[in-house]
Amino acid sequence: MKIANYAQLALLLTYSLSVVSTVPAQRSITARVLPNELNLMPVPASVQPQPGRLAITNAFTVATKGYADDRLRANINRMTRRLAGRTVLTLPLELAVDENTATLVVQCTGAANPVPSLNEDESYSLEITDKQARLNAPTVVGAIRGLETFLQLLSADRDGYYLSGVRINDRPRFPWRGLLIDVARHFQPLDVLKRNLDGMAAVKLNVFHWHLSEDQGFRVESKKFPKLHTMGSDGLYYTQDQVREIIAYAADRGIRVMPEFDIPGHSTSWLVGYPELGSAPGPYKIERGAGIFEPVLDPTRDQTYKFLDGFLGEMAALFPDAYLHIGGDENEGKQWDRNPQIQAFMKEKGIKDNHALQAYFNQRILKILQKYGKKMIGWEEILHGDLPKDAVIHSWRGPGSLAEAARKGYNGILSAGYYIDLIFPASQHYRADPLPADTTLTPDEAKHVLGGEATMWSEWVSPDTIDSRIWPRTAAIAERLWSPRTVTDVDDMYRRLAVISRQLEELGLTHEKNYPVLLRRLSNSENIGPLATLASVLEPVKEYRRYQVRPQTMISPLTGLVDAARPDSEAARQFASMVEGMLGDVPRYRLYRSEIRDSLAGWRDAGTALDLMIDRAPGLEEARPLARNLADVAATGLEAMDHLTTGDVATIMWRDAQLAKLDEAAKPKAALELVIIPAVRKLVIAAAEVSPAK
Amino acid sequence: MKIANYAQLALLLTYSLSVVSTVPAQRSITARVLPNELNLMPVPASVQPQPGRLAITNAFTVATKGYADDRLRANINRMTRRLAGRTVLTLPLELAVDENTATLVVQCTGAANPVPSLNEDESYSLEITDKQARLNAPTVVGAIRGLETFLQLLSADRDGYYLSGVRINDRPRFPWRGLLIDVARHFQPLDVLKRNLDGMAAVKLNVFHWHLSEDQGFRVESKKFPKLHTMGSDGLYYTQDQVREIIAYAADRGIRVMPEFDIPGHSTSWLVGYPELGSAPGPYKIERGAGIFEPVLDPTRDQTYKFLDGFLGEMAALFPDAYLHIGGDENEGKQWDRNPQIQAFMKEKGIKDNHALQAYFNQRILKILQKYGKKMIGWEEILHGDLPKDAVIHSWRGPGSLAEAARKGYNGILSAGYYIDLIFPASQHYRADPLPADTTLTPDEAKHVLGGEATMWSEWVSPDTIDSRIWPRTAAIAERLWSPRTVTDVDDMYRRLAVISRQLEELGLTHEKNYPVLLRRLSNSENIGPLATLASVLEPVKEYRRYQVRPQTMISPLTGLVDAARPDSEAARQFASMVEGMLGDVPRYRLYRSEIRDSLAGWRDAGTALDLMIDRAPGLEEARPLARNLADVAATGLEAMDHLTTGDVATIMWRDAQLAKLDEAAKPKAALELVIIPAVRKLVIAAAEVSPAK
Repeated sequence: MKIANYAQLALLLTYSLSVVSTVPAQRSITARVLPNELNLMPVPASVQPQPGRLAITNAFTVATKGYADDRLRANINRMTRRLAGRTVLTLPLELAVDENTATLVVQCTGAANPVPSLNEDESYSLEITDKQARLNAPTVVGAIRGLETFLQLLSADRDGYYLSGVRINDRPRFPWRGLLIDVARHFQPLDVLKRNLDGMAAVKLNVFHWHLSEDQGFRVESKKFPKLHTMGSDGLYYTQDQVREIIAYAADRGIRVMPEFDIPGHSTSWLVGYPELGSAPGPYKIERGAGIFEPVLDPTRDQTYKFLDGFLGEMAALFPDAYLHIGGDENEGKQWDRNPQIQAFMKEKGIKDNHALQAYFNQRILKILQKYGKKMIGWEEILHGDLPKDAVIHSWRGPGSLAEAARKGYNGILSAGYYIDLIFPASQHYRADPLPADTTLTPDEAKHVLGGEATMWSEWVSPDTIDSRIWPRTAAIAERLWSPRTVTDVDDMYRRLAVISRQLEELGLTHEKNYPVLLRRLSNSENIGPLATLASVLEPVKEYRRYQVRPQTMISPLTGLVDAARPDSEAARQFASMVEGMLGDVPRYRLYRSEIRDSLAGWRDAGTALDLMIDRAPGLEEARPLARNLADVAATGLEAMDHLTTGDVATIMWRDAQLAKLDEAAKPKAALELVIIPAVRKLVIAAAEVSPAK
Repeated sequence: MKIANYAQLALLLTYSLSVVSTVPAQRSITARVLPNELNLMPVPASVQPQPGRLAITNAFTVATKGYADDRLRANINRMTRRLAGRTVLTLPLELAVDENTATLVVQCTGAANPVPSLNEDESYSLEITDKQARLNAPTVVGAIRGLETFLQLLSADRDGYYLSGVRINDRPRFPWRGLLIDVARHFQPLDVLKRNLDGMAAVKLNVFHWHLSEDQGFRVESKKFPKLHTMGSDGLYYTQDQVREIIAYAADRGIRVMPEFDIPGHSTSWLVGYPELGSAPGPYKIERGAGIFEPVLDPTRDQTYKFLDGFLGEMAALFPDAYLHIGGDENEGKQWDRNPQIQAFMKEKGIKDNHALQAYFNQRILKILQKYGKKMIGWEEILHGDLPKDAVIHSWRGPGSLAEAARKGYNGILSAGYYIDLIFPASQHYRADPLPADTTLTPDEAKHVLGGEATMWSEWVSPDTIDSRIWPRTAAIAERLWSPRTVTDVDDMYRRLAVISRQLEELGLTHEKNYPVLLRRLSNSENIGPLATLASVLEPVKEYRRYQVRPQTMISPLTGLVDAARPDSEAARQFASMVEGMLGDVPRYRLYRSEIRDSLAGWRDAGTALDLMIDRAPGLEEARPLARNLADVAATGLEAMDHLTTGDVATIMWRDAQLAKLDEAAKPKAALELVIIPAVRKLVIAAAEVSPAK
C-alpha cells in the first residue's frame, strides 16, 4: 500500500476527531450552565464565582480539621495522587499539620455511617480563594463528594495549574443514585467492578446494584448451598472474601452495595445444582442464550422457602446494606401452568392467577427478609395490594409505575430511561427525570421518589467492552440524579461530558482506550485509520434488535465491529450539528461548509480503502456492506453539497432516487447503523429546494 | 483552532505510523528466517512447510488423546477463547469426543510436575495438514508451549481464517527463561502480574522472578514477622493467599515463581519494623529515593539468623519453587565499617574485609535454605570460594561472571544485557547471548549456563507504564533464550515483534493502549496529534541517566512525557532505515525520498503546534525545548534534502553550523532524547558531499 493512501485516510479519520474539538469551541460562545468555563459534572446546587485563583504547585498540602478518620484520610490521599498524576507534581503522602498554611483544609463535623446508607448527608461546601481551599461537610461522605468537585475544578494555563476562585454549596437532589451491573450474563472480574466504583464516585453515584444471579449464571459463593456457585457459574463467581472486598472498596467511596438475587424467574442457574427447587423436574443446564426463559422456582413447596430462608439469611449477613433486591421480573409462569401440583395448590388456596401466585411468593420472601432485618426492593412487578409500605418499587417499564407507587405511598426508584445497555444517546437518558417538571404528584407523594439507577445488563458486554457501554453516558445520568432539575442544557452537558470522560480514564476505565485495541485485533493491523473512520459513524442497533439481527450466545466472542462501535457517535452528532447550522444559515456556521465537504470526502475514501482491509480480515466481512454504504452515502452527500454550493437546484427525480438509496443504506447491517444518514438526508432534501438562503 | 491545522497535524502524525507499515512490506522481499510469512516468536527449533491449509471455522473443535488433566483442559479452553476473539467465531467450551473429526488433537504422553521445575520437558511437535492439526508433547507443559505456537500460526485471507500446512519440532535452547519484576520500588497489583504472566506464557518464558523486598518496600505478608509488611509497605503488599493465587496462576501456564528477598543490603524496609536487625541503631523509614543505600542487616548477631531462619522457613513453605533468591548485591558495607561490634567480630573471627563478611553471612543463610530444602541463587557478588556447587550465580554486571562461574562448575543465568529498565532497543538485548558463538567455554562448562532473565527494575514504572517497559522488547529476549543461536536477523525480529506485540494486547497488556491515555492526560485534550508526533521520535534517556537529569522520588507521579515515551522508537528506526537506503542509493529505496521529506515536514509543523498545546498544559512545559528542537532539526533535514534533491552541494560552513545545532538538539531535555538526530546528521553530511550517487 502506498503511503499517499494512508496519509489521505488518516486525514479523513482525523476530520471526525477535529470536528469534535471545534464545535464545542464554537458552542462555548453561547450561554453556559456554569460560570468561568468550569467543567463540573454533576453541576452543583449552587456555584458562585469569586475573585482570585489558587495555584497548585509542589507545595500543595492538605490538612484536616475537626473530625477525621481513616476513610477521610484514604480519600484525601487518593485525591492527592490523582492531582499529582494530572499535574506531574510530586505531592506529599502525609497530611499537613498546620491548617493555616495548607492549600486545602477539609473540615468534617462528624463521621458518616461506616456502612453507607440511604439517608446519608452528602452535602458539602467548597470555597476557593487565592490563599486556600476550604471544604466543609457535616459527614465524611459529604467531604468525599467535595473532594471530587475539588479535582474537577483544576484548571491550567501558561502560568501553571490553578483553581479559580469560587464558592460552592452542594447537595444531591435524590438520595438514591445507582448503577446496576449485571455480572451474571457475562461475569465481570473484580478489577472491572473496582474501576467502575471509582468512576461512580467521580460522578457522585452512591449505589452499586450488584445483579448477582440470572438464568445464565450464579455469581456468589454460598457456603450453605455450594452447588449454587459450583454448578451454576462455570467457575466464574465471587468468593465471600471478594464480596467483602468490594463492599469495603465501595464503602470507602461512600457507595452502598445492594445485592440482587432475581427470583422466582431468571433462576435457571440455581436449578442446575438444586433442580428440586424448580417448577418442572429438570435436569437444568446453565442457559447460554439471551431472552426470557421458563425455569422458575416452585412457590408452592415449603422446601423452597426453607432453602431461601437459609440462602437469604446467609446473604443478609454477607451484605450489610439495608436493602436486598429480589428481582421478581419477567416471570411468565409457563412452568407453573403446566405443573398439576402447582395448579392444585392455587385452587386450594384460592389463588386466581400467576400474578397472584407470585404475590403469595413475595409475601413469604418478605417475611424471610424481615426476619433478617432487610427491606425488600423488587422490579415493578412486585407492586400489589398487600405489599408493606417499606418495600421499594424499582420501575423499569416506564415512569408510570413509579408515580403509581408514590401515590400509593411506596418509595420507588426509576430505571426506565436509564437502560444504558440499549445504546441510546446520553441526551435521551439526560432527559429522563424521576420527577419531571410536569409531574402530577403532590409534594408529599413526590418524596417517595428516591432517585434512579442506570442499568448495565450484560448480555452483550465483556470485561473489555463493558466500560464503553457505561461511560461516559452514565455521567449524564449521574448529573440528572444529583443536580437541580433545571440543569437541562444538552449541548453544555456534552461539552462537559467530553472533559469528564477523559478524567475517568485516570481511574483505569477503558471506554476510550480499548476502542483502538478492538479495531487493531479485528483488522489485524496497526493502521486502523479507515476502520476507525467507519466505526466512528456507526452505532450498534438500539433496544433489543442486536440479538434479533445477529444472534450470538453467552459464549460467543464480543470482539466484532458491533462490540467496538460505541453508542452516541460524537462524529455523527457534530456532523448533524454542522449540517443543521449550515442549512439554517446561522452566520457562524457558514464556515462549516468546507468542513462538511471534507468530512464527506473522508468517508467516501475510507469506504474504498476498507474493501482492501476486509480482504485480509475475515472477521470484518460482515462490515463490507457498511463500508460500501459509507462510500455511497458520502458520495450522495457530496453531490448534494455541489448543488447547495453552486445554487444549481437538484431535480426531484435525483432527490427521490437519492432518498431511496439512503433508505436502503439506513438498514442495519452486522447489527450496526450508519448514523450520518439523517443529516445527509437533510442535505439531499435541501439540494432540491429553492431556498432564499442560498 | 482551525480545522485545517488539525488536519495537517494529523497527517504528520500519521506519516510515522504509515512508515512503520510500509518499510516491513519492503523488507519482506528479503530473505526470511521463517517460511510462508509466518510470524512465530520465538522461532521454533525446526519449521518445515507442508502443502495444504487448515480452515478455522465455527466448526472448530479440540480433542485430547492420551494423558489429559485440568491444567491441559484449562489451557485448551483459554487458547480457544483467544482464537474465538481473533476470529469473531463462536467456538465451543467443551472438548470434542471424537478425535477423528476434531480440528486440533492434543496428545500428551504424561503429566508435568504440578510445580513447574527447571528440568521440565517443554518440547512439542505440531503438524498442520488440510484435515487436522496434531500437537504432540511428552508433558502438559510441552503442550502448553505448543498451543501458543498453534495460535501464532493463525492466518487470514479473503477465504477466511486458516493455518498453513507445516511441521514443527520445537524445544527450548535454555531451560531457564525468566522475567524479573521488581514489585518493591513501585508496587504492582495482582492484575499487572497476571497479565504479564499471560504475556510470558505467550512467548514461552518460564520463570517469574518476583523481587519482593527492597529499601523502598517489603511486599509480602509475613505471619511470623508482621511488622515486615505492616510497617515496611505503605499497606501495599501481597497477602499469602494472593501469593498462592499468583503461584497457581503461573503454574497453570507452566511458569515457575521464584521469590527474591534481597539481603543483607537493600533491606531498609525490613528495618522499619525490626531496627534491631540493622547494623546501625535506627530508627529507619521506608526509603523514598532511588540509588544504593547504607542500611544492611547485622551479620554478626545470632538474633539476625534466628529471625532469618524463621522468616525464610515461612517463605520456603509459601513458595514451592526449588530456588530461593537471596539477592546479595550492592552492599557497600558502610554501616559495617562504622559499627565497632561488627569490627570486633571480624577481628575475632579473622574476617578480613566486608566481602568476606558477606561470604560468612551467605554461608549461614545457605545452611538455613538447605534446612528448608531450597537451593540458593544470588547476584554474582555471592560467588566466592566456599560456595557449594548447587548454588546458582545470577550475572548482572557482565557475561564474564557467568563464564567464570561456569568454569568453576557453578550453574548461572544471565541478566547483563537484559536490563529492560535501561531503555535500550530490542535489537541490543537480542544480540546478548548467554552462550555466544565465540564462547571459550568447553561443552561441559557450557552446560552450566542455564539461561537468562529480563529484569524489570521498577524505580520509574507505575502499573500504568510498566507494560510499556516490558513489552514488546521482552519477546525478543524470550526468543534469544528459546530459539537456536543462529536466529539473529534483527530486521526479521522487528517484523515479527510488531505482530506479536499486537497479539499481546489480547491478554490485557497495556503497552500500546496506555500510550494515548498518558498523552491525553498530559495535554488535557482528545487531540493529541502533535504531541504523539513528538513522542513517537523521543526515547527516555538510557541507563541510569533519568534520575540524574530529572530526579524524582518513589512517590512522584509517573505521568510525565518521559513516562509516556517508549524505548525503541519505531518511527526513528524506520526513518533511519529510509535515510540509509536513500543515501546508499539502493534502487528500491529511491522511492523513500518523498517520504523522508514528508516525515520531516510533519515534524517541523508539529513542533510549532506543540507550542500552543503546551500553553494549556503546564505538565508539558519541560517538553517545550524538545518541541522546538523537533521543528529545528526537521527544518535542517529539509534543507539537507533540498541540497540532495537539487544536486546543489551545501557548503562546509553550512554543514558545520547545522551539525553544531544538531549536537545542541541532541542533548537530553526532560530526560528525553530526540532520536531522529543521527539520521538527520547523515543527511546534513551527505548534503555537503559531492557524490556520484546524486
